[in-house]
Amino acid sequence: MTVKDIGEFKLIERFSNKLKTDSTVVKGSGDDCAVLKLDARSYQLLTCDMLVEGIDFTPKIDPYLVGRKSIAVSISDIAACSGQPRYCVVSMGIPKKTSVKLLDRLFKGMLDIAKEFKINIVGGDISQSPKITIDVSMLGRVEKKNLTLRSSARSGDLIFVTGSLGGSISGKHLKFIPRINEARFLAKEFKVNAMIDISDGLSQDLAHILKQSKVGAIIYEDLIPMDEKSTSLSDALNSGEDFELLFTMSRKIAKRLLKRNLVNFKPIGEIVGEKYGFTLINKDGKPIKISPKGYRHF
Amino acid sequence: MTVKDIGEFKLIERFSNKLKTDSTVVKGSGDDCAVLKLDARSYQLLTCDMLVEGIDFTPKIDPYLVGRKSIAVSISDIAACSGQPRYCVVSMGIPKKTSVKLLDRLFKGMLDIAKEFKINIVGGDISQSPKITIDVSMLGRVEKKNLTLRSSARSGDLIFVTGSLGGSISGKHLKFIPRINEARFLAKEFKVNAMIDISDGLSQDLAHILKQSKVGAIIYEDLIPMDEKSTSLSDALNSGEDFELLFTMSRKIAKRLLKRNLVNFKPIGEIVGEKYGFTLINKDGKPIKISPKGYRHF
Repeated sequence: MTVKDIGEFKLIERFSNKLKTDSTVVKGSGDDCAVLKLDARSYQLLTCDMLVEGIDFTPKIDPYLVGRKSIAVSISDIAACSGQPRYCVVSMGIPKKTSVKLLDRLFKGMLDIAKEFKINIVGGDISQSPKITIDVSMLGRVEKKNLTLRSSARSGDLIFVTGSLGGSISGKHLKFIPRINEARFLAKEFKVNAMIDISDGLSQDLAHILKQSKVGAIIYEDLIPMDEKSTSLSDALNSGEDFELLFTMSRKIAKRLLKRNLVNFKPIGEIVGEKYGFTLINKDGKPIKISPKGYRHF
Repeated sequence: MTVKDIGEFKLIERFSNKLKTDSTVVKGSGDDCAVLKLDARSYQLLTCDMLVEGIDFTPKIDPYLVGRKSIAVSISDIAACSGQPRYCVVSMGIPKKTSVKLLDRLFKGMLDIAKEFKINIVGGDISQSPKITIDVSMLGRVEKKNLTLRSSARSGDLIFVTGSLGGSISGKHLKFIPRINEARFLAKEFKVNAMIDISDGLSQDLAHILKQSKVGAIIYEDLIPMDEKSTSLSDALNSGEDFELLFTMSRKIAKRLLKRNLVNFKPIGEIVGEKYGFTLINKDGKPIKISPKGYRHF
């Protein structure tokens, strides 16, 4: 039996089921970040993301954008937990014949986004490898009261997304802006129940929230904010790496948010009881059962 | 110009020279761990290490030992700073055809050593890749007064190593015990000035201490504790991955340590002024200038 036979999610489950953690770990494997006890007011957030040449990016892509993305994906994970990113370390696997010029560009992409989000790059490791491989681990912080997990959506919540969906394929996955500002704004002025960043695709990532919160959802095709470059509903539903935030809040608080008429936050549906499953209401008002699809490595 | 032309150390320097960190970073790139401010009494330690199949291990090696090593190398970095490891995240690049059985073994190796050293594995990331690639990032903690860096050796210090050297090639690099207990014992009962773990080889790692502390050293061939499986002085001096601790302490405190007659701590020489350089006194009493050699990825 190979990893291809078993699939990415089963493989992760196989490992994470065996993990035991002590009482200082608020949330281990299974959310956007690990959540660790820190002090009376705050938790620490820890996350890692690996990019591999030929899988997550092609050699034709500007290395500046690859470097930028390698840091941005971890920032997005911290945003999904409503935190502030602070520090990161960078491990790189590099083929012998890689040009120093290419690495300079790649590194410039890292430095620029780290500066933009006030993140300290504090170390790293270099190894030889057959393809360029970048793994970034990021440490952040969140006030206890602001922590948002995948597991705390409640029946009756409205579901929102930031920005627009489906633009990933046409290049957004390399140029997205991690939604730290949006997450911090929500934390400060509203109360988010559950949150995740859309890295696998709306249908799959909403399914993560539903499963972990033990709830169902109804979303409306008419309400999904399509990226101008997205070609179909399927792009918006199933293509990974939009790196927008998907979140739920109580109807009461959602009303306050909606009154502000902010272009960056769009309601797309509501959380319902688990027994109702996951439904899309299409443009004709017809309900369609959703089977989550999205990017998987195996 | 390729990375092979420029070499590993120049490449790291090229990057690390561009890093800017804020006042919460006590030590960024350039030591075994990054050192971050935490609270009045403690610092946080952060480190990462990447292993790549075909470079850091061959496909013939028992995956259990590969998994074990992937965690052990980061524990060793925390030990070099005299800290306690607490949490880690694991990123893995996996070829599609990898057997689940192999990964189960590899993961068992990780779990066992994490349990042994009371480390919480709190998350990870999986990607496809052409060769098995494992990157572990580890978070630890050290009391401020116990922190040991590469940069604080002083002229007059004695130089010690734990265990024995040169056994890496014959398999120790897969089975070494990270020297946490030794480091914590030293921190509790003595005062270490500078410390590093021997991952590149004694000559190269001592050279790191000398350069960063702006001092020289005299070491004695007769005093180097050779592993029973090491075949030559060159093995003990220049082969990487012994993962023993190399440290310096004042002569006064060293005397206290020597009186205890502990088999795990052996003096090998002394720190001298920078102008005297790095010298080995061979078995005939003849001084030989040392040009650091050891493992480099490029």
